[in-house]
Amino acid sequence: MKNFIDDLNKAFESRVRLGIMAALAVNDTLDFTALKEYLDVTDGNLASHIKALEKEEYIGVNKTFIDRKPNTRYFITKQGKKAFEEHITALEKLIKSQK
Amino acid sequence: MKNFIDDLNKAFESRVRLGIMAALAVNDTLDFTALKEYLDVTDGNLASHIKALEKEEYIGVNKTFIDRKPNTRYFITKQGKKAFEEHITALEKLIKSQK
Repeated sequence: MKNFIDDLNKAFESRVRLGIMAALAVNDTLDFTALKEYLDVTDGNLASHIKALEKEEYIGVNKTFIDRKPNTRYFITKQGKKAFEEHITALEKLIKSQK
Repeated sequence: MKNFIDDLNKAFESRVRLGIMAALAVNDTLDFTALKEYLDVTDGNLASHIKALEKEEYIGVNKTFIDRKPNTRYFITKQGKKAFEEHITALEKLIKSQK
């Protein structure tokens, strides 16, 4: 029991952060609006969780312009992908312990 | 995506609460010390998460005496088992979305 708890990543305890990581793990990049619609959360809520994941360097941001309008796209980093995969593995262990 | 996020239970976001529920789902009852050793957490940390789960009525408490010493044992409630199973199902969906 101790092991799978330890292997769960505190950075991914929030549902919204889990959702952001899951979305970015299967999409090369997503912009703020796409993430927001995907997860059905408020701007403020999404922004604070994005900030937390950026601080951990689990996601990165690309700022460009499309038709002179700013376009901010997020992507999962290499270490973010690794950390998320480890978290998923720990969740799988938890689930198996229940079967 | 929206669905599995919504189906994740906010009460189980914390690793410690997940651990308490997982432990009580597979053991009829556990006392405070057993849970503490199982999860390798401090008294204060465990107590606060137990309190939160009791408030949700996901776990219950039985207070008895063994050799005149108080013995407090925790168990999962019927609605706790249901809520935890739904949470596990939502986690399974999240994991499947990553494969």
